Amino acid sequence: MTYCLASLVNAGLVFAADSRTNAGLDNVNSYRKMHTFIWEGDRVLVLLSAGNLATTQAVVTRLQREAEENAGPLHEARHLSQVAEYVGEVSLEMQRRHHSPDAPNRVSMESTFILGGQIREEDPGMFLVYPQGNFITCSEEQPFLQIGETKYGKPILDRVIEPGISLEDAARCALVSIDSTMRSNLSVGPPVDMAIYKRNSLTEPRMLRYKLNSPYFASIRKQWGEGLRRLFDELPRFDWEQQ
Amino acid sequence: MTYCLASLVNAGLVFAADSRTNAGLDNVNSYRKMHTFIWEGDRVLVLLSAGNLATTQAVVTRLQREAEENAGPLHEARHLSQVAEYVGEVSLEMQRRHHSPDAPNRVSMESTFILGGQIREEDPGMFLVYPQGNFITCSEEQPFLQIGETKYGKPILDRVIEPGISLEDAARCALVSIDSTMRSNLSVGPPVDMAIYKRNSLTEPRMLRYKLNSPYFASIRKQWGEGLRRLFDELPRFDWEQQ
Repeated sequence: MTYCLASLVNAGLVFAADSRTNAGLDNVNSYRKMHTFIWEGDRVLVLLSAGNLATTQAVVTRLQREAEENAGPLHEARHLSQVAEYVGEVSLEMQRRHHSPDAPNRVSMESTFILGGQIREEDPGMFLVYPQGNFITCSEEQPFLQIGETKYGKPILDRVIEPGISLEDAARCALVSIDSTMRSNLSVGPPVDMAIYKRNSLTEPRMLRYKLNSPYFASIRKQWGEGLRRLFDELPRFDWEQQ
Repeated sequence: MTYCLASLVNAGLVFAADSRTNAGLDNVNSYRKMHTFIWEGDRVLVLLSAGNLATTQAVVTRLQREAEENAGPLHEARHLSQVAEYVGEVSLEMQRRHHSPDAPNRVSMESTFILGGQIREEDPGMFLVYPQGNFITCSEEQPFLQIGETKYGKPILDRVIEPGISLEDAARCALVSIDSTMRSNLSVGPPVDMAIYKRNSLTEPRMLRYKLNSPYFASIRKQWGEGLRRLFDELPRFDWEQQ
């Protein structure tokens, strides 16, 4: 499995992704699930992927080839939603290419994407593209999107992410969310990729990659873990627990 | 959906369950998902249920009727695992009764149960009974079982629950786990039922029921929420965030 998330706050966008993949249970590998497409001063696009690895790689390869040639909707679209639509189309095409309803073994070819970024003067935005090719955006009440193993890490996002927080707080919250997920589910694993895009910069986001022992990520993990434990120990006692 | 959990620690057993049910999306109700079967001095059994409400009610009704007549494995089994086996059998029977493969609308009849308790001198134990009727127990590394919407509330259990903690800590942790789940998933809701069974007491567990505004639960929710936020705000800064 996978866990990727993106947050849209007033200050910009934060993207984060784990990098563990598995084909079956015993073929576990590490692949980058975050890809950027950047034309300085014109547009910045970040794509996160979850699902069938062959499908996501086929989609990303197609998009990268077109980007290198400055061709296709990634380079030409005037609105981010048009890029999301195109990602959905390419995803469907790649799924169909390897899908046959009478195959002896039924493997899901489905992939899900988060696309975020900014095109020229348009506001930064993000979309979750479903395997069916359709897509949704986020809302002011819930300004984050998640794909893959989304549930373990959702409670802290629900509590912290809101449009007014800083990019750095959104990034820290993403690290805490991914840490909680990694602790509870072995199929989500390091290293963690992160991209922090400042609104209207139209330049490459700040790109970070954290291993478990990277000093900053390690300090977050330690302080959060110890703090939770302390917080728990300080909770009010039941009425029969009088000292 | 539903969220139920049970923890087995050296001091005894803790059970907790939400009480929201839904048939489809718009038929939302509140039902007790925790049922106790007690023969003082001989055995204490606690059953938590998730899944198809008709199936779980049919299973519980059958077990209650037999318990009233002091008949059947609940009253007679020498080992808790035999009771788990029986719950699985009854569950399968009830599922089959209303299952027809050519039904026009395919509703899942499946139910999942957690059975825990103690029979005479046997150590306290607990089992998760699958819809297929088979079952598993917990391990020392993970001395808790969950059914229903299990993922949102798992991280705090992973961090806190271990055999050496007190019954009260296990109970507090269950409340925090359910609170996190309720905040992130509307299909899990109050009131919260809780049973705290002291090892070797062979008497009725301490039974508690919390609404959102019950003073103790409200104080846990408030202190946990505010504490998390403070903990988050105190996390180390990125290296470029120098004041």
